[in-house]
Amino acid sequence: MLLTDSATQQSGPAVPSLAEIERRTEALAQALAANAVERDRAGGHAAAERELIRASGLLDLTTPCAYGGWGQSWQTFYAGLRRIAQADSSLAHLYAFHHLQVATILLYGKPAQHEALLRSTVEQRLFWGNALNPNDKRALATEDGTGWRISGPKSYCSGSVGSDRLTLSAWHEPSQSLLIGALPSDRAGVTIRADWDAFGQKQTDSGTVTFDQVRLEPHEVLVQPGQVATPRATLRPMLAQLILTNLYAGIARGALQEGLRYTRDASRPFFASGVSRAVDDPYVQQRYGQLAVLVRPAELLADLAAQAIDQALALGDAVTAADRGRVAIAVAEAKAVAHRAAVEVSSQIFELTGASATSARFGLDRFWRNARVHTLHDPIDYKLRDLGRHALTGSFPEPSSYS
Amino acid sequence: MLLTDSATQQSGPAVPSLAEIERRTEALAQALAANAVERDRAGGHAAAERELIRASGLLDLTTPCAYGGWGQSWQTFYAGLRRIAQADSSLAHLYAFHHLQVATILLYGKPAQHEALLRSTVEQRLFWGNALNPNDKRALATEDGTGWRISGPKSYCSGSVGSDRLTLSAWHEPSQSLLIGALPSDRAGVTIRADWDAFGQKQTDSGTVTFDQVRLEPHEVLVQPGQVATPRATLRPMLAQLILTNLYAGIARGALQEGLRYTRDASRPFFASGVSRAVDDPYVQQRYGQLAVLVRPAELLADLAAQAIDQALALGDAVTAADRGRVAIAVAEAKAVAHRAAVEVSSQIFELTGASATSARFGLDRFWRNARVHTLHDPIDYKLRDLGRHALTGSFPEPSSYS
Amino acid sequence: MLLTDSATQQSGPAVPSLAEIERRTEALAQALAANAVERDRAGGHAAAERELIRASGLLDLTTPCAYGGWGQSWQTFYAGLRRIAQADSSLAHLYAFHHLQVATILLYGKPAQHEALLRSTVEQRLFWGNALNPNDKRALATEDGTGWRISGPKSYCSGSVGSDRLTLSAWHEPSQSLLIGALPSDRAGVTIRADWDAFGQKQTDSGTVTFDQVRLEPHEVLVQPGQVATPRATLRPMLAQLILTNLYAGIARGALQEGLRYTRDASRPFFASGVSRAVDDPYVQQRYGQLAVLVRPAELLADLAAQAIDQALALGDAVTAADRGRVAIAVAEAKAVAHRAAVEVSSQIFELTGASATSARFGLDRFWRNARVHTLHDPIDYKLRDLGRHALTGSFPEPSSYS
Amino acid sequence: MLLTDSATQQSGPAVPSLAEIERRTEALAQALAANAVERDRAGGHAAAERELIRASGLLDLTTPCAYGGWGQSWQTFYAGLRRIAQADSSLAHLYAFHHLQVATILLYGKPAQHEALLRSTVEQRLFWGNALNPNDKRALATEDGTGWRISGPKSYCSGSVGSDRLTLSAWHEPSQSLLIGALPSDRAGVTIRADWDAFGQKQTDSGTVTFDQVRLEPHEVLVQPGQVATPRATLRPMLAQLILTNLYAGIARGALQEGLRYTRDASRPFFASGVSRAVDDPYVQQRYGQLAVLVRPAELLADLAAQAIDQALALGDAVTAADRGRVAIAVAEAKAVAHRAAVEVSSQIFELTGASATSARFGLDRFWRNARVHTLHDPIDYKLRDLGRHALTGSFPEPSSYS
Repeated sequence: MLLTDSATQQSGPAVPSLAEIERRTEALAQALAANAVERDRAGGHAAAERELIRASGLLDLTTPCAYGGWGQSWQTFYAGLRRIAQADSSLAHLYAFHHLQVATILLYGKPAQHEALLRSTVEQRLFWGNALNPNDKRALATEDGTGWRISGPKSYCSGSVGSDRLTLSAWHEPSQSLLIGALPSDRAGVTIRADWDAFGQKQTDSGTVTFDQVRLEPHEVLVQPGQVATPRATLRPMLAQLILTNLYAGIARGALQEGLRYTRDASRPFFASGVSRAVDDPYVQQRYGQLAVLVRPAELLADLAAQAIDQALALGDAVTAADRGRVAIAVAEAKAVAHRAAVEVSSQIFELTGASATSARFGLDRFWRNARVHTLHDPIDYKLRDLGRHALTGSFPEPSSYS
Repeated sequence: MLLTDSATQQSGPAVPSLAEIERRTEALAQALAANAVERDRAGGHAAAERELIRASGLLDLTTPCAYGGWGQSWQTFYAGLRRIAQADSSLAHLYAFHHLQVATILLYGKPAQHEALLRSTVEQRLFWGNALNPNDKRALATEDGTGWRISGPKSYCSGSVGSDRLTLSAWHEPSQSLLIGALPSDRAGVTIRADWDAFGQKQTDSGTVTFDQVRLEPHEVLVQPGQVATPRATLRPMLAQLILTNLYAGIARGALQEGLRYTRDASRPFFASGVSRAVDDPYVQQRYGQLAVLVRPAELLADLAAQAIDQALALGDAVTAADRGRVAIAVAEAKAVAHRAAVEVSSQIFELTGASATSARFGLDRFWRNARVHTLHDPIDYKLRDLGRHALTGSFPEPSSYS
Repeated sequence: MLLTDSATQQSGPAVPSLAEIERRTEALAQALAANAVERDRAGGHAAAERELIRASGLLDLTTPCAYGGWGQSWQTFYAGLRRIAQADSSLAHLYAFHHLQVATILLYGKPAQHEALLRSTVEQRLFWGNALNPNDKRALATEDGTGWRISGPKSYCSGSVGSDRLTLSAWHEPSQSLLIGALPSDRAGVTIRADWDAFGQKQTDSGTVTFDQVRLEPHEVLVQPGQVATPRATLRPMLAQLILTNLYAGIARGALQEGLRYTRDASRPFFASGVSRAVDDPYVQQRYGQLAVLVRPAELLADLAAQAIDQALALGDAVTAADRGRVAIAVAEAKAVAHRAAVEVSSQIFELTGASATSARFGLDRFWRNARVHTLHDPIDYKLRDLGRHALTGSFPEPSSYS
Repeated sequence: MLLTDSATQQSGPAVPSLAEIERRTEALAQALAANAVERDRAGGHAAAERELIRASGLLDLTTPCAYGGWGQSWQTFYAGLRRIAQADSSLAHLYAFHHLQVATILLYGKPAQHEALLRSTVEQRLFWGNALNPNDKRALATEDGTGWRISGPKSYCSGSVGSDRLTLSAWHEPSQSLLIGALPSDRAGVTIRADWDAFGQKQTDSGTVTFDQVRLEPHEVLVQPGQVATPRATLRPMLAQLILTNLYAGIARGALQEGLRYTRDASRPFFASGVSRAVDDPYVQQRYGQLAVLVRPAELLADLAAQAIDQALALGDAVTAADRGRVAIAVAEAKAVAHRAAVEVSSQIFELTGASATSARFGLDRFWRNARVHTLHDPIDYKLRDLGRHALTGSFPEPSSYS
């Protein structure tokens, strides 16, 4: 259990075994796969599928046992996330962002907040979303007696639609810095508008959250404006970046598997190939080999980066800037490789399935659309720049929301 | 005027100047662009836009002057096609396939058929579609007195929905070869079902044409079963392949232009870039440079291949297998390069526009979807194989429906 | 200790610790690096450097403790090999091929042969080379009483020049199969001609071994003609393929490090870059990032494949065709990725060092020349084909000298 | 005749026909090819081959007829250059740099200088080299009565060793700008040291020219310090960049042809290919196709850029910054594409020839070594940046020595 603290570990419902966790993950992935094509077409809020996630119990996966969670490692979490993303990278994103908010509380909050916010999360099976987008500084925080008032809009809030709880950030003009907090999604003055309309990752429940004189109590503030981040706290964007990475790797693997399945089951050999089955076409074989060696490294590097994160978190407050820097490099390597795998594999499989696979009823283009939309979170060229700069000078990426 | 024959050239309405043709092409392209995003979303038959094409007069472009057409070169045709494809590669396909059927009549038919079929085409502004798919041998031709009866379905008939006239092929069991003919789309027994549902190239009016004891008169037969193709006749698939090539090149250019426009008008610079406009980001500049040098060669090679076709057609029946082979190599080079340009540029522009460009209301993913679907017509690896084989041994691609 | 057998483990000189092995490997690599450029220029036999290898004791690394060796895992061996290959991929090849011949004895030979051949190898510090090239069937084996006579030439025998012992193969006409044996390099009738003149991997002591009525005793025969290979025996080509893989990965890493060093220490910024140090050029940073993520996956996959080999060897004779198949897939993945990394990185570094780095006195082109020559051992396209075929159908690569 | 001026055109020896020029070019290329491998190995000054170039008469190719030259277009020059570069890109560079200096005189000098310098060049068959490197500002110009004194070294002076005449630049401290002049290579105080030792382009006769109080007469000054360059004068770096481009394209074509020849004549099929000739291997065919479509666009774009240069030069002093800008874009497109073709093709051919082609006696690695060294003249990423910037904003590359 890595993101824990001094709270006494308490007895609760038994933590499932790794095998049981894998079984539930697999079951969830298969349930999501069953209607992923239809939901991709329809877009919008996937209420029923959110409930499947909730019912799986997997929302407790990374919450420390001390608060009733399962206290699993991030390696376990990310491996499962990748499996889910193969089936449905939108719902996988929702699932992952819940865990990111749990980590946000643990990394940014105080022990009392861990106890209060996480225990209730487990007990009430709460689903967290976010209103944290640091680039949108329109939501402002002003002091209001002992607490705060938040007013203004916040865009690109994934997981906000249909959430129970929200983390949020708001710009504090006087200190020119962000306040970070957490509150119930139905707090008075909070409006969530489902305005996400990208051509991929359609069901990430992303929206614009508008705050209208929303009251934030002192105990709901995780980070005070002006508060300096510790190296440990700056691991949070690493968790976020590695979520993206595993979504990309999952999309790549999912696309490859669906492509292979189609070629195997439905493709006709090209007339000039001289073979009677598409799977025997030498070019089809060669190019699936090329795709396979794009996907595998993405998975391996993602696993290694997860290990690095677990190790850094295990250091607690002793984690140094250099420890954090090494994590950032491992994550950046994995993200750059997974990015390319997702975009390339999801586009190239069609050359190996043939034209009939482009029928809208198969929805095989969703992998590319999901990859394309999601890989734009932050530019790959700056990730590569960070890696090159590190190789050249040894310097680590400067901690930011993206690095 | 290249696809002419011994028929006396007759006076008719004045042929527009090249400048006027360019003007009409540009106007048509802009009209199609105006609602291309909406129509891509809706799919289905674009009746109004078909009428725009008809009204432009451009359906007469490649018909010899002898039959009242404009008698323009294929170079002129393809350059215009590329412009239209930048705006809307589905309607461009429809437009091009009309011209392909005109060429089919000229290359396969006899002078009397040219006169009969093409003069009426010009006079009545007929729009041709096709039911020629040689891979689907379910439609059968049986002799019926002096003429033929056609029965059975034919799939992937692009341009058939909403057409006035159709070219068709039907399998003749006794001779194990195809009959090729032409007939009105509303001939008794012909049913056209709009069943195309690919995720791209949505408005190509592709469908399944079903023949139910359809009568084909002797004068409607362009190629008798068993008739051996001359090298000149085998230029037809080259015209078809170069249509695809120019659609790809047009998609690539269209995607690049829309990407550039978005970056210029709407993209925000990445926070770590240190610049205040996205167009000043060094990576954005570098990578647009990379995309530009993918698109330009596709256009150049397409132009050269069109020249090669015009030259070969100018030889009339004297065209040799080697002449035809050189055309095939020029076309294959252009197609391989345009294929790659279309798929790469339409996918990569997003890395340079940023995430906001993925909003469905911009429909910028249509370039990739169109490119992806259309480039699967026949596998690029076999095109590359033909090119490599030629480089190694000097042998030309064996004439087929695809090479 | 994985390649052992029923022989009783005996006490011998103490096996060095892993740390000590690493220290000796590092020292050897640095010693080889010191004059690698000069030796690359001169080519030919590197007698002194062979003695450095011998003196390091590392020739005993994979020999089972039972015969006086160090009994280390292949993972340990391959990791060290990669380090040596960074410095000098020719000498690394020589070093690795010694171990491959040790493994050949263990996998093909009988326990008595293990004892006889390996104990003397350790005690006398013998260096093994090979004359095994299965594609060259000019060397023939004929029965000669209880033993055999070998006559004819064998080409591409790497490690033969300057060796103490040789494994060999010879074609047996009557059974249309190979005999495999082992003998001293100075056996009467054996001539070794140093005729390797490739533009890279110059010091691999490769040559043509000519046998002139060479006597092979029964106890020197490892594999009788016609003898069917067990799945375990077919792990030998996997060991060989993974040697190549680690040489490629080592070359890639070596080239990257030397490129980085040059850019750091000697490159001048381009006048238009606006920076005062080459390491601050945004394109130099980005592209070193791209190279870094080519090299890392090669190393990871190589490590995983080594694990797979160790696990398969640990199964002893119980290893099944499927076990062996999984190893082959892991090795093929690693080899394909390392191949690409070596060729790309060794060529691309120059774009980041600038023109001054092409001075012959730095010898930086040796990485590309070594990569280019060594990666041609067997075609990457067939490796990719094997991987694609496996992904499509689940079938494993057919055991051969290359797969 | 494009680089002419107001001088009256005079009768001289007959200008050869284009066919004759082509014949002489071909003969020269074949003569250079005959011992290119040996000379690549030996390096150093190719005195005899320089004389072959001189004897061909082709040094007069671009000199205006008014001064006794052949007055050919740059299109003709570049096409011939590419042919020569296929055979030997070092000697091709020497040949091209002679013409670049001729153009330097025409673009920078006054009519009287054209007459004086070029007529003697034709009459005495002088071979020009350069000492112009603008990045090396160690050679200084100081006023000396009516003329100048030049002192200091100038590095990377290609074509200087063995030249008859030199163009030179020298830094003028007071005005912080360059003086450009021309003088005999044997002028008192000029020393030329052959110190070029790159691993490729070995015979470019590049060296360090050292000036020791060298007198430069007023009529030898082409550009006074501080003199502002006209748009027409800034076409000179475009001529230089397009020389590089055509050398790259020639290397790419040369490598491809030699690769094809080897595969055709000498490669053995891979055992697993199931074919009896390497040319029938499906992967070999496919990948040669890929290489062919890398080379062809480079040639086409180079031809187009040469047309653009000829057209701009034909405008004389009326050429505007925008005219010049369009030339710069055409040249940059061609250079970026040719760069990639040269490096990729020269490296990849080996995967299609197999290992035996790496024997040093074939010298097939010279294409990669030549491409690698020569493509580092200026970084491709800044060329791509210029192209992307132009696509984004319409701005043209700022005239410099490289753009």
